[in-house]
Formats: sequence, C-alpha cells, structure tokens
Amino acid sequence: MNTHTLQSHLTDGEFSFANRMQCIPKSFIREILKVTAQPDVISFAGGLPNPQYFPVEALKNAAIKVFEQDGCNVLQYAVSEGYKPLREYIAMRYKLTQNLDIDPDEILITNGSQQGIDLAGKVFLNPHDKVLLESPSYLGAIQAFSAYEPEFITVDLQADGIDTNALKMVLANQNIKLMYAIPNFQNPTGISYSIEKRIATANLLSNSNTILVEDDPYGSIEFTGKPMPSIKKFLNKQTILLGSFSKIASPGMRLGWVAADKKIIAQMIVAKQATDLHSNFLSQRIIYQFLMDNDLETHISQIKNAYKQQRDQMLGCIHKYFPQQVKYITPEGGMFIWLTLPQGYNAFDLLQKASEQKIAFVPGGTFFLEGKGQNTMRLNYSNTETQQLEEGMKKLGSILWEWMR
Amino acid sequence: MNTHTLQSHLTDGEFSFANRMQCIPKSFIREILKVTAQPDVISFAGGLPNPQYFPVEALKNAAIKVFEQDGCNVLQYAVSEGYKPLREYIAMRYKLTQNLDIDPDEILITNGSQQGIDLAGKVFLNPHDKVLLESPSYLGAIQAFSAYEPEFITVDLQADGIDTNALKMVLANQNIKLMYAIPNFQNPTGISYSIEKRIATANLLSNSNTILVEDDPYGSIEFTGKPMPSIKKFLNKQTILLGSFSKIASPGMRLGWVAADKKIIAQMIVAKQATDLHSNFLSQRIIYQFLMDNDLETHISQIKNAYKQQRDQMLGCIHKYFPQQVKYITPEGGMFIWLTLPQGYNAFDLLQKASEQKIAFVPGGTFFLEGKGQNTMRLNYSNTETQQLEEGMKKLGSILWEWMR
Repeated sequence: MNTHTLQSHLTDGEFSFANRMQCIPKSFIREILKVTAQPDVISFAGGLPNPQYFPVEALKNAAIKVFEQDGCNVLQYAVSEGYKPLREYIAMRYKLTQNLDIDPDEILITNGSQQGIDLAGKVFLNPHDKVLLESPSYLGAIQAFSAYEPEFITVDLQADGIDTNALKMVLANQNIKLMYAIPNFQNPTGISYSIEKRIATANLLSNSNTILVEDDPYGSIEFTGKPMPSIKKFLNKQTILLGSFSKIASPGMRLGWVAADKKIIAQMIVAKQATDLHSNFLSQRIIYQFLMDNDLETHISQIKNAYKQQRDQMLGCIHKYFPQQVKYITPEGGMFIWLTLPQGYNAFDLLQKASEQKIAFVPGGTFFLEGKGQNTMRLNYSNTETQQLEEGMKKLGSILWEWMR
Repeated sequence: MNTHTLQSHLTDGEFSFANRMQCIPKSFIREILKVTAQPDVISFAGGLPNPQYFPVEALKNAAIKVFEQDGCNVLQYAVSEGYKPLREYIAMRYKLTQNLDIDPDEILITNGSQQGIDLAGKVFLNPHDKVLLESPSYLGAIQAFSAYEPEFITVDLQADGIDTNALKMVLANQNIKLMYAIPNFQNPTGISYSIEKRIATANLLSNSNTILVEDDPYGSIEFTGKPMPSIKKFLNKQTILLGSFSKIASPGMRLGWVAADKKIIAQMIVAKQATDLHSNFLSQRIIYQFLMDNDLETHISQIKNAYKQQRDQMLGCIHKYFPQQVKYITPEGGMFIWLTLPQGYNAFDLLQKASEQKIAFVPGGTFFLEGKGQNTMRLNYSNTETQQLEEGMKKLGSILWEWMR
C-alpha cells in the first residue's frame, strides 16, 4: 500500500478562498484578549459575564436530571427549530415581562444570538444589499453580516438612541434591506433607546421595507427596575428579535433564539438545517430543566445587583481618578462604560501605555466602520473583582493624568 | 405609552429573501420523518444512530465531573477553534488509528460535521463555482453547499467508489473548486472506496486545484476489522477531512471537527467566529472528560457489533422475503443498505404502498440531483429493534412480491 503523501499541485498560499472572506474584518478584540490572557493583567477589554454568577450547581443538578430521566433522547438528533417546551418558555417569558405576544412557533433556537445575526444575513442578504448599523456597532454583527458582502450604511448613536433625523433621511433615500440595532445597553456604548426613539424608529421603519434585527442580549440586565419595551412591540412583523441565555445563565452553552414572523422563521429553519442541523440538544434540555427547577428572575436579580455595584464602583473610580476632560456615558444596564477622550487623544496610544502597566481595554475606534471614534474607548466592568477594578482604574487614571498634563 | 403595534408597510408574503434561499432544496427526508413519527410505524427511513448504545451513564458522570471540577470555566465563553485538549485527543487518535499526522492546530471543533461542510462552502465558494458530488450524495451536503450558489457536477458511484475514469474527464475539462466525497460507508449507498480508488482519486486531484472535502462520519463503524486509510493520507494539503462524535458518542451534542491545512483552518476560524463565536464549550468539556475516563474503542466495538448484527439481519430478510430482482449492496460499515428495483419500478410508488402498511424508507431518487435513481431506495438498519426489523422487512417483502407479480 502506498501511504506516501502526494506532492500537491498547490504551492504555498495558493488556496483560492471565496471573495467573502476578504470582507470579514478580523476581531481586534480577540487579538487584545490574547495579549491580555496573562493572569497579572487587569483587563477591562473583554465582554465576558462574571463567572461568579453562573448557576453552576443548579445547572449541574439539571444535567443530572435530564441524563437520568431521558438520557437516550437528550443525546439523540433533534428538530431544527429547537426543543418545543423551551420555545414555549421563551414565548411565555416575553408575555410576562413585556406583554409581548409571540407564538412558540415564531421562535427558533440558535447557537447563541450570534447565530441569529448570521442566519438573518444568510436568509436576507444578497451581495451589495444595504445593511444599516448604529455607529458605533457590535463587531460580531459586522463580522456576521460581512460574510454576505453587503454595503454598510451607518447612523450615529446619540445619548438616547439612534439619531432618528438621520435615520429618516437614510430610509427616505436608500433601499435598506436590514437595520441592525441593540436598543438596550448597547455593546459597545451602553446606550439605551428612550421610549420616544423606540416608537420613532418603529414608525420610520413601518413606512419602509426594511427588516429590523433587534439584538437584545443585555435587556434583562437592567439596573433601574423600569425595563423598556422591545421595538418589536411596535413593529412586530418587520422585526427579528434576538435573545440569548449567555448573559443570564451561561454563554458557554451557546443558546440563543430568534423571534420573528413565521415566514421568516420558516426560511431560517431551512438555513439552520443547512448550516448545522440543529442546536445542541443536550444543552437545550439542561437549560430547560434549570428554568423549570429554579426561579430565573431571582437569579437575574443577583446578577443585576452585582453588575450594578461593579458599574457604580467603576463610575466612582472615574470620578476619583480620571481627569475631568474624560467624558463618560452612564449605562443603565449591561456590562460596558463608554469613554470619550478630548479631541486629539487617540485611545490606541493610551492602550499602548496601559499595556505597559498591564492594564487592558478596547479602543473605541474598533467599533466604527470609517475610522471615527479614535478618541473613544470601552471599559467592561462585569468581569473584574472589586480590588482589581479599583487598582486598575487608579493606574489608568494616573496614566491619563500623566498623558494629558 | 403607545403599545399598539404599527401596521407594517409589508403586505403578506412580501419579505424579500436572499436569492440563495431558492437554491437550498428542502429535505424530503425530514418530510418523511414527520409522517413516520407515529409510534406504530416501522421506519427504515431515518439516519439515526441507535440510542440504546449512547453512553448515557458515562456522559452523565463526565458532566458531573466537569461541573464539579471546573464549573465556572465550562459555562464561560471559549476560543473559536475549540478546546485544545480535545483537539489534541482527535489528532492523537488519527495517529493511532490511521498513522495520520495531524497537528492539533490543524483542527477546528464544529457543531457536528454538518457545520464543517457549511464552513467549507463559506470559506471557498463564490457563486457559480463548481462543486463535484458523488452521485448519489448526502442531502445535507447538497443543502449546505447550495447556500453558496455553486454549480454542481456529479460523477457516478460504482460498487468500489467513484468512477475514476469519469472523474479524470471532469477534472481535465472543468475547473472544480471543491469535491465532496464520503469514502467510508457512504450515505446513502453504504459504498466504500477501494484502496485503489482512494489512491487514484488522490492522484487525480493532486494534479488539479480542487480541494477535497472528505466527510467521514461513519469511518469508525466498520465491520471487517480492516479500516481503510483516509484519502487525506495521500493528499494531505488539499484535503479537508471532516469527523464527528455523532455516530460514536452522541449526535445531540453536535460535536464534529474539521482537519485541514493551517491556512484553511485560519480562514475557517474567521468564518466560525462570524457564524456563532464557538462550539458549545460545556459539551466539548463533557465529551473530553468522557474520552479520558472511558475507552472509546471498547465503546465503538459495542456499536459495531450491534450494527453488524442488525445489518446481517436485514440482509437475511432481503434473502428471505424480497424478490430476487431486487438488488442490494452489502455495506461493510455504517448504517444503510442501498437497494435497486428493476427498471421501471419507482421507489416513490413503493413508499406510497408501504406507508399504507405503516412501513417507511427513503426513495433513492431523493439523493440524486438530476432525476436519476427513481428505482433505488435506502434502508436504515441501525435504529430498528430485532422483532420490528423482521416484521417490517417481511411486510415490505410481501408488498414487493405483490407489486412485481
């Protein structure tokens, strides 16, 4: 038997990849995270939930239960749309928390909400179709959509949500296929849409053919006790609402969902089958058992209280340690604080200085498509313990004072 | 607050889906499976592993262990390429079982091998690129590739693998971007490539720019004790080898992998990030713990022995109950037997008759792209218990005798 490997006709680097691969931007954040993986770095760069609040014991017990009660089934192939009782639970929770009517058959379980973004792109986008993004926007969404080679149009975010005047102009003059927005505690800015901007956005979109992809990974992590309604509430048929268990239970289990019109869901199921048949069924069953045996809202309260304390501590540190010229937005939920340095100060330069003192964060320019925001930066507060947070912010403050002297 | 839903500008059915959605064929098998989901139907239609041989207890114990030993980490976000020790295990197993040298960094963990097919399409295919398929081929692959709007070229399968003369002609005359093949116990035919055809295929491809996607979900489930080498053994750099835990541990956990040149893996990691960030980390950790605490080869032996018995029983039934004009291929592994009815007999008609008697199978025409194979059919033997298998085959035999009289 000839087991000698043949000399390939291909010479090095000759692989002919699809054009779309040149369109997907590399994640600068992942690069930063690699650099900052050393244990002695204090990192505000990540976007990770605090593992201290993962319901480890409860999920373990749920896992034992599903293995013992239905082991063969939970390990078998399952339907593409996802476990029906889990879809019913999600629908029920929308009804309870938002009085939002969603049929369980309008829900598809995905590998985290990231896959919801990808499937929206797969189902709707032809090359050169226009996708409207908030500016700045979530890098993962830019990556997911980029694979379908769209043209991106951006509209600025203001302190109370998207600039609806600019949105009106864009919608009037351009044929936008999808609009992507994170109305609650946006990543990276922490900004939330006011109720007026939610309604205005829905009104503007209702006069267009544009489909809204409303991404809501952080909606449950809100600190005021006054949650805002989804834009889907006002623009049902035209809205693809994405949700996730990543921030309220576990991101490693990769479970999210899409809630959309049945015609859209039907196409997404076809795309989902073609992509990976179905989402991890064992994890769907474990999370469902966890939801049955525990009070999710109590668990979420713990996370909210903890993150609110961490946010307050970080805001306090900004007051104590940072020069006043550094402006910030107070987030009312989520995991990020957005800072703006005075004009002319570049956050990439600051990162350079900070890295030398083993502090990390993400320069905000990363989240803009057209080179804007060089003087902005994103700090994560959810995943740093009290003492480290204080120490890291103090050091960062010293660097800023020194630099801005 | 106005919570009234706005009247959408879109009227019914006006969603403007991407062109690619019209290219993805619907799965006829899923339609059959829905019909045959009733418990009193004896179904040879599915392609499911036998849940009786899922290692439920061992996976439960592995799950408890990872929750107890590393609960916070297994529930957190993880790297896109997959858990390194799991990739090292897979590389080690290729070395042990096939003497195949694969670096752990040449491996990407995916949501089952289905996602490996999708990512190969995403990374390589521009619209109208040519994809070469065995005829017949795996429907899931046709669906996955279709989303990238390629042109399909087919080459017939013979009893010992692909028709290499035809393959030579096609490669000489057409610029084929990807060739997709299942050299071991193919779905749907059960056919395996002889060693000569493996080497011949590698030789032909080595003179082309074509990348081989070698899908191997069934390779470990072989009955002769003489496993064949992967084509990747002869054509390393040009081969994307796909593997899966679905048939040897659990399909519901959706864990597969891609083994390919580092340059290809680098692109696939970018695509994987954009698609769903990473594969379910909890499941990766559970399966890794399972592999550490149990002997996989012993577990696989049990499955092989059981499936071999089931295959032998089904072959025996064909001899006992079917008219001699019905021809079959003896599979030396995997889960399927492929039958050919005499010319002029349509297996879709047979399915109609069989359904009335609550027997199901998949008409082979489903697996061909151009209307061929109307007189062929696929029977699954892995997921039917002894008595039912006997009863179902006996009934199917009676129907055939009656019909062919």
